[in-house]
Amino acid sequence: MEFIEGVKIYNTMEIPQLQGEKMEGETVTVNGAVHTIRDMGTVAFVVLRKRDGLLQCVYQQEQADFELKTLKEADAVEITGTVIRNEKAPNGIEIQLKSIQILSEPVEPMPVPIAKWKIGTTLETNLDLRPITLRNVRERAKFRIQEGITRGFRDFLYGQGFTEIHTPKICSKGAEGGANLFKMEYFHRPAVLAQSPQFYKQMMVGVFDRVFETAPVFRAEKHNTKRHLNEYTSLDFEMGYIHGFEDIMSMETGVIQYIMQLLVSDYGKEMKLLNVVMPRVDKIPQVRFDEAKRLVSEKYNRQIRNPFDLEPEEESLIGRYFKEEYDADFVFITHYPSKKRPFYAMDDPADTRYTLSFDCLFRGLEITTGGQRIHDYNMLMDKISARGMTDEGMETYMMAFKHGMPPHGGLGIGLERITMQLLGEENVRETTLFPRDLNRLEP
Amino acid sequence: MEFIEGVKIYNTMEIPQLQGEKMEGETVTVNGAVHTIRDMGTVAFVVLRKRDGLLQCVYQQEQADFELKTLKEADAVEITGTVIRNEKAPNGIEIQLKSIQILSEPVEPMPVPIAKWKIGTTLETNLDLRPITLRNVRERAKFRIQEGITRGFRDFLYGQGFTEIHTPKICSKGAEGGANLFKMEYFHRPAVLAQSPQFYKQMMVGVFDRVFETAPVFRAEKHNTKRHLNEYTSLDFEMGYIHGFEDIMSMETGVIQYIMQLLVSDYGKEMKLLNVVMPRVDKIPQVRFDEAKRLVSEKYNRQIRNPFDLEPEEESLIGRYFKEEYDADFVFITHYPSKKRPFYAMDDPADTRYTLSFDCLFRGLEITTGGQRIHDYNMLMDKISARGMTDEGMETYMMAFKHGMPPHGGLGIGLERITMQLLGEENVRETTLFPRDLNRLEP
Repeated sequence: MEFIEGVKIYNTMEIPQLQGEKMEGETVTVNGAVHTIRDMGTVAFVVLRKRDGLLQCVYQQEQADFELKTLKEADAVEITGTVIRNEKAPNGIEIQLKSIQILSEPVEPMPVPIAKWKIGTTLETNLDLRPITLRNVRERAKFRIQEGITRGFRDFLYGQGFTEIHTPKICSKGAEGGANLFKMEYFHRPAVLAQSPQFYKQMMVGVFDRVFETAPVFRAEKHNTKRHLNEYTSLDFEMGYIHGFEDIMSMETGVIQYIMQLLVSDYGKEMKLLNVVMPRVDKIPQVRFDEAKRLVSEKYNRQIRNPFDLEPEEESLIGRYFKEEYDADFVFITHYPSKKRPFYAMDDPADTRYTLSFDCLFRGLEITTGGQRIHDYNMLMDKISARGMTDEGMETYMMAFKHGMPPHGGLGIGLERITMQLLGEENVRETTLFPRDLNRLEP
Repeated sequence: MEFIEGVKIYNTMEIPQLQGEKMEGETVTVNGAVHTIRDMGTVAFVVLRKRDGLLQCVYQQEQADFELKTLKEADAVEITGTVIRNEKAPNGIEIQLKSIQILSEPVEPMPVPIAKWKIGTTLETNLDLRPITLRNVRERAKFRIQEGITRGFRDFLYGQGFTEIHTPKICSKGAEGGANLFKMEYFHRPAVLAQSPQFYKQMMVGVFDRVFETAPVFRAEKHNTKRHLNEYTSLDFEMGYIHGFEDIMSMETGVIQYIMQLLVSDYGKEMKLLNVVMPRVDKIPQVRFDEAKRLVSEKYNRQIRNPFDLEPEEESLIGRYFKEEYDADFVFITHYPSKKRPFYAMDDPADTRYTLSFDCLFRGLEITTGGQRIHDYNMLMDKISARGMTDEGMETYMMAFKHGMPPHGGLGIGLERITMQLLGEENVRETTLFPRDLNRLEP
């Protein structure tokens, strides 16, 4: 009988190993994709694309046992050669090529120049050719940073006593109500795709005290803007035994601080490649919704048209205001009007036209909505009635409150949006692996 | 201007802090849900449910400034009292109650006795009352262990150079084909829910070399069995530059070994609470599909009815065979028949009726399907044609191969199933927070 005993170690090397102190002069075997070939006549550079970056290989006919012309771009290869330190080469090393084995070949040349610094296509073409365009090292670096954000979110919350949950995406009813639900048929019954894990994460506060989920959410919104997606990844948490809704903003501040630390420590290469300007995260100003509107109206001489909503331009001006006045990249806007928040939002006892809720703006764009929720069964029933709703279809949700729930609240962070703002992108599709919008269901 | 500077620290304590060496005799404040009250006459025990476990509080009228009757089960409370070491109490400590503040109250008594060791309801009732039944400490411990499995999967793969990806769940076409696709309308176009991230993770091997995803998948399968769900969490990975499909089994073995270590180190309390019997993971036998069938047929005197498929009973017998013969809890079954695998599976060059693929059985149940994929464009086109298919609707997938892909393969692990087998449960719904099946769309 044959047995498998764990991860197999091969002699093929990755870039961090090749960078080791004692590697100079060593003969090594490395695999990778031929990213580009630059033939200078007497010498040629064969650049391999590997997961950790680019690796420059030097081809000289007299040193190698193969002809350069046997190689082409997009070949997957395994090469053998000698390690040479070269500060000018990417990652400070290059390989003097000796021999090569071709593992796999393309059948057509690249449709776009992926080895260039910027691919230079329109966004539409970039997205149409996603499996190819992402091979550009700057394009893919965006998603390594996105990984760091998700990872930082989870790791910080594990450390704060949160439990990770997986809640269903096919549901009988939406949590937020409204028209933006994708409908489907579930074994001859009407069903919808979850707009958010809201009801589930609240119910789970009664079980685990603190929970989080990182999962897709679905919104059938018909506006096609630079900041909306119809499917996105939501970083959600919900926490019990809060002393007030400030606790939720404090936890988000902690999360963001930890994420930025992690990006610096573990994703430095990608941060540098994309020239990411680190935001200031040591302290985040909080300002009331109505006060924020007044501040930007006064400073930028802009009339308040709708006292109950923030227009995108107002969000942007609030971002500008707090950058100019306090050098702040993030701002918490608190006390959103009750009529603009879902039924489960806790109204401010001091003035019930407003809620104990907030948005977090990052460089002038909303990346988070959060707040305290109603935990008292009777208060919740009253608010449902006052809105002309019923609890039909929400029996299980209401059950949690009927049998006792601690004071609690939580939030959702849009992963693609926080990535977009961190990287200074203009369109959220730039930081979505395979975006879904009003026109795009492919690839 | 007010600023938020990070996580707020309160004086309320969690169980690990209360267990500290110097805590005996200290006056502390603790919050939690009243899990149960046991009134013994002169003394009463008020057990709080907290995220880390149960905390026993001792009520004696002369010590406390409140009446016991002001408290009831399922209240959310903040208590103040003195720490006493007591080896017989859960977690080795108890609190002598002084005063109490009620944060929130239920409006109805519990429908099931959650404080009992086993709740004793049918599975259907358990699932119907999920927000309540999960408050039972053994019920919720299952999902803490499930967290550990997901976390271990991710952490191990981060360390192995994998990049985490998020792929779309609303797609124009399914990856596996077949009748088990949930259909929906996407802005007046037909769409489906992703059966697996297969196409996307393969395309991303061309970008990141190694990728993983932990996300929901959707299968409109009409069988209602103890081991099927219509929505489940799939732990997927895909890796390039493999030397053979054994590399994938080796990586899975590494993943499983790491997960079990993490469960022992970080989830010991839950493992003990559920009496989990650790599986043997130091080495995992691998056996060919046809050989496995022959072995169990001979040993258990069972006729081979279908040489191309494994019946559930055969899987179970294979599990039994390898436990009896090799003390193995996991088994890799290799070389599944080509006709039973999707078009992208790599056929075995030695005998193309079989594939370089495998299932992993855990205690007699399939928890993983994986294998090497075809990486050569022409070979893939030939196989598509040979199956009477076309590449219509798969243009982007094919694009990745047209422009070069390394040899690669991967797998998907069913999270709820591996949890079920680890915990020795009989029904996968027991280890699903909110299961979706043929009859269940709620809660």
